[in-house]
Amino acid sequence: MYPICRSITGNGVRDTLALISADIDLKISEVPTGTKVLDWTVPKEWNIRDAYIRNSKGERVVDFRRSNLHVLNYSAPVDRRMSLGELQPHLFSLPKFPDWIPYKTSYYRETWGFCLSHRDLERLTEQEYEVFIDSTLADGHLTFGECVIRGSSQDEVLFSCHVCHPSLCNDNLSGISIATTLARLIAQEKRRYTYRFLFAPGTIGAIVWLALNEQRAQRIKHGLVLACLGDRGGMSYKKSRKGIADIDRAVAIVLRDDADQFEISEFSPYGYDERQYCSPGFDLPVGRLSRTPHGCFPEYHTSADNLEFVDADSLADSLMKCLAVVEVLEGDGRYVNKLPKGEPQLGRRGLYSDMGGYADAREREEALLWVLNMSDGNNSLLDIAERSRLRFTAIRGAATSLAAHDLIDQAL
Amino acid sequence: MYPICRSITGNGVRDTLALISADIDLKISEVPTGTKVLDWTVPKEWNIRDAYIRNSKGERVVDFRRSNLHVLNYSAPVDRRMSLGELQPHLFSLPKFPDWIPYKTSYYRETWGFCLSHRDLERLTEQEYEVFIDSTLADGHLTFGECVIRGSSQDEVLFSCHVCHPSLCNDNLSGISIATTLARLIAQEKRRYTYRFLFAPGTIGAIVWLALNEQRAQRIKHGLVLACLGDRGGMSYKKSRKGIADIDRAVAIVLRDDADQFEISEFSPYGYDERQYCSPGFDLPVGRLSRTPHGCFPEYHTSADNLEFVDADSLADSLMKCLAVVEVLEGDGRYVNKLPKGEPQLGRRGLYSDMGGYADAREREEALLWVLNMSDGNNSLLDIAERSRLRFTAIRGAATSLAAHDLIDQAL
Amino acid sequence: MYPICRSITGNGVRDTLALISADIDLKISEVPTGTKVLDWTVPKEWNIRDAYIRNSKGERVVDFRRSNLHVLNYSAPVDRRMSLGELQPHLFSLPKFPDWIPYKTSYYRETWGFCLSHRDLERLTEQEYEVFIDSTLADGHLTFGECVIRGSSQDEVLFSCHVCHPSLCNDNLSGISIATTLARLIAQEKRRYTYRFLFAPGTIGAIVWLALNEQRAQRIKHGLVLACLGDRGGMSYKKSRKGIADIDRAVAIVLRDDADQFEISEFSPYGYDERQYCSPGFDLPVGRLSRTPHGCFPEYHTSADNLEFVDADSLADSLMKCLAVVEVLEGDGRYVNKLPKGEPQLGRRGLYSDMGGYADAREREEALLWVLNMSDGNNSLLDIAERSRLRFTAIRGAATSLAAHDLIDQAL
Repeated sequence: MYPICRSITGNGVRDTLALISADIDLKISEVPTGTKVLDWTVPKEWNIRDAYIRNSKGERVVDFRRSNLHVLNYSAPVDRRMSLGELQPHLFSLPKFPDWIPYKTSYYRETWGFCLSHRDLERLTEQEYEVFIDSTLADGHLTFGECVIRGSSQDEVLFSCHVCHPSLCNDNLSGISIATTLARLIAQEKRRYTYRFLFAPGTIGAIVWLALNEQRAQRIKHGLVLACLGDRGGMSYKKSRKGIADIDRAVAIVLRDDADQFEISEFSPYGYDERQYCSPGFDLPVGRLSRTPHGCFPEYHTSADNLEFVDADSLADSLMKCLAVVEVLEGDGRYVNKLPKGEPQLGRRGLYSDMGGYADAREREEALLWVLNMSDGNNSLLDIAERSRLRFTAIRGAATSLAAHDLIDQAL
Repeated sequence: MYPICRSITGNGVRDTLALISADIDLKISEVPTGTKVLDWTVPKEWNIRDAYIRNSKGERVVDFRRSNLHVLNYSAPVDRRMSLGELQPHLFSLPKFPDWIPYKTSYYRETWGFCLSHRDLERLTEQEYEVFIDSTLADGHLTFGECVIRGSSQDEVLFSCHVCHPSLCNDNLSGISIATTLARLIAQEKRRYTYRFLFAPGTIGAIVWLALNEQRAQRIKHGLVLACLGDRGGMSYKKSRKGIADIDRAVAIVLRDDADQFEISEFSPYGYDERQYCSPGFDLPVGRLSRTPHGCFPEYHTSADNLEFVDADSLADSLMKCLAVVEVLEGDGRYVNKLPKGEPQLGRRGLYSDMGGYADAREREEALLWVLNMSDGNNSLLDIAERSRLRFTAIRGAATSLAAHDLIDQAL
Repeated sequence: MYPICRSITGNGVRDTLALISADIDLKISEVPTGTKVLDWTVPKEWNIRDAYIRNSKGERVVDFRRSNLHVLNYSAPVDRRMSLGELQPHLFSLPKFPDWIPYKTSYYRETWGFCLSHRDLERLTEQEYEVFIDSTLADGHLTFGECVIRGSSQDEVLFSCHVCHPSLCNDNLSGISIATTLARLIAQEKRRYTYRFLFAPGTIGAIVWLALNEQRAQRIKHGLVLACLGDRGGMSYKKSRKGIADIDRAVAIVLRDDADQFEISEFSPYGYDERQYCSPGFDLPVGRLSRTPHGCFPEYHTSADNLEFVDADSLADSLMKCLAVVEVLEGDGRYVNKLPKGEPQLGRRGLYSDMGGYADAREREEALLWVLNMSDGNNSLLDIAERSRLRFTAIRGAATSLAAHDLIDQAL
């Protein structure tokens, strides 16, 4: 997917969703230009075929075919000769990182421009240039895709990722790849929750989905925005607006249990599409899972966020964390101890390991005692995992054993 | 005001209030000796004209005319000859700071005494001394002053300072000077709150005011006792008994936003007149603002708390903090986002700075997003400033912009 | 008591309770084997007279008469000759501490065994051994003792200690000795609460008591499990399941006020009999007081937990802490300030020390002001001691003075 020139509308998004469809069952929706969506309007559709700046010798000194980042995303068409002075206000570079091409967009103010490395910019001499962008900005559609995996309940878990960035890898391809694989893996088992995977352009895509699904959005009981999940940094989680939602606690438990290094930060109303899901009129329990957060790595929004920047082990690790979060959400619940007075005699039931040996025997026994002690109908397994500081998987396993021995019942 | 011999009653207070009246509109009240006020009784009025200890050569070895601190405040009259041995129990000095005269009082136990530097005390030889205090303790009045600046609401903000200390500068003149200037500045604009400035003797003055205004006291929605605001130390704030009153949070925000160095401490029932305002029968939301707290600088209650000890820049800084607190109280409020579903499109409304440039553009945009996101009618701007960690002035400014663009409404 | 071979049933417990009865008024109960108690069943009674391993020369190489720890507690009888290979699975030692005999039990799985120092184990050569345990495991009783000291209220304070460990000193004799002495001291004064001291075998003893007293257990308003109170370490307290019970706060205040070094840890459902008292069906406010917690000193459950390991000063200090906790529980209460508007004039009532002198005058005055300020009927003296950071005894003393001067009333 890396070479595709994606934007918030157009064939780049369609081609991307088509590739995802090869892996998972994706429902594609198209919303016409001009449709009112909440406070916004679906913009004209943008498509681009070629773009360059040619010098007086006829050489393409800036060439869209080498990198789709070279064109200011959503540039209007242009086909003119001009001096360097006239061209200059339309050129963008990063003096601090002179070899990298910046990524810039202008979705809602019609203009055109080129992005190039600062080294290339400095090489441009005073002469007449041929400036050409073969793009169209015209009535069309905004495109997004959804994969829904039905569980036994209509309550939903949302995973949302953006699909609008062109040749950038951590910032958006990593999210797409995690979401796609996660959807495949989740579909392999019967699930309690219904899982919705949303692949949509940033901001306007989430707004479109929310506008079309105002009622259905209330079914979302837990959600994660997936972004920047492929770099070599530690995990980071940004809490939902609620701050104490189950998703916030589930991710925190998974990171506490399994991550070497992680950071959890409070909600703030800027970032990715959690901005929309957590707007006060929806206030959905949706957080954001990343490795190094956007804006905290210098490669962000430059040509250096490329295939080398993303690491297969990091992607795999991010995927495992997402799966572990799903297991917490699926496995959580409140139970009632059926023999709440005193401890039940675990030894008689073979629940106490006789005389040591197992490395994890102590954790198993502690987990049994914690679940018995806390299961008064008020505490969820997540509560118990937090309070006991034992791993959620140990608590979940203890609950399964105790239920099998008829010592606890699920609370209604 | 420095040379005036103030006490809890008498002409020293009257002369002080007369000087304040030159600057602001002050209503002076007089309450007769013997008046029952809560659990207390207004004491006899004390006035003093002269006092000295004369040695056998007729020299004034301790002389009220050199410093009014030399007399134990509220000393009964005396005119006798006595030996050093007989005089000794009536002499007070500070061995630790041998050049400083201590400040001592005996309001409610009739006695007399002299305070002097330890060096002077040690110079006294065995001989007969003429001991003379030309004071009167007689039925009279207790005097206090109030300046009230009416706002659109009857809800009041109280600023209270004590006016009973003689030639001490940080401990009480600093508070008087801040309160007077603040009253002048507040009066220059239309205000939402009514502001009450109380200039009264410590303890008994606050008790008198509360006794005379039991009903009106309930109108006080926020208040500050001002004391020790002129020294070179950092700001300090002592919370009200409630501990989470708006005044506690407003001062904390101002110090967080604007102070280099500050300390916030919990309420305790000793200190200045917050003792009375925060007694359980009133429990008013009144904290105390100081720089170095009383008792935490060695010059406290000695002749070294003089005009040099107080610093003009520190006074100005304290005044600015008080004004900033007033701006938080005036500017706070709860708002409702009128487009709460998704983010409103700020760019369309010119609320997003196009392409960078302004140093504070990022803070402005973040403030807009925070106010929009949190304005569900439950969060005040103070809440939002706390949660976002943005400056209150930025949050307040964002609310003003958003209201002007009809994006938020004041909550009822 | 040290040489007695105690277990969860049998004559060792009876002999121990008989010794306690010499000091305090103890009611002994016997519950027959086979009685259903909550989820458990009272086991067969175990008694032992002799046990040894004799080598081919007829020498007792392991001898119960030298230490009762040599026998796996609750061993079934055995009288056989066998090779070292056959004997080996029945031998237990501590390679890490080669001079110490471990303490091991097998209450609910019938087997037999010997515990010995690792050095002794290594000396055993291949030969035929005579293995003899003269024990009986037969229908009988489980025995426990209670000492109840009636107060003016039926509300109870429980002190519970286990009496089932053989020659171990810190782990269980320390608790027995503290509980016995505490009962004697508490009985010397009229008390508000009724005090119950329970001397019972660990786990099954607490379960038996709870089974027999399901209703009465609800009268327990505060409780402590006493264990490991004689070693030289600092105090440690493990909170009740509730975590914010008065007993949790009372112990915390006593340790804050009086202990040089202490640790307070959260509840967990393993440890001593707090496991049973804090099971969810009872959820009693019972914490555990120890010095070094069980399992945190290497001597734990070995022959090195002997009379030398326990220190008289530490025992005395633990006792004083228990008494101080009792004083907090007895002395706590909520009061109402009868002159809540402003401060009452303490000087007039002689409650203000005139002019300094007493070392603790400042603390006394602060305590008076805190009690007056906080006594609005909502705050207990414990609340006030916590908030003021003054010692509970100072707060309690101030309340007594203020009540004597008719300034506060006990709240209903």
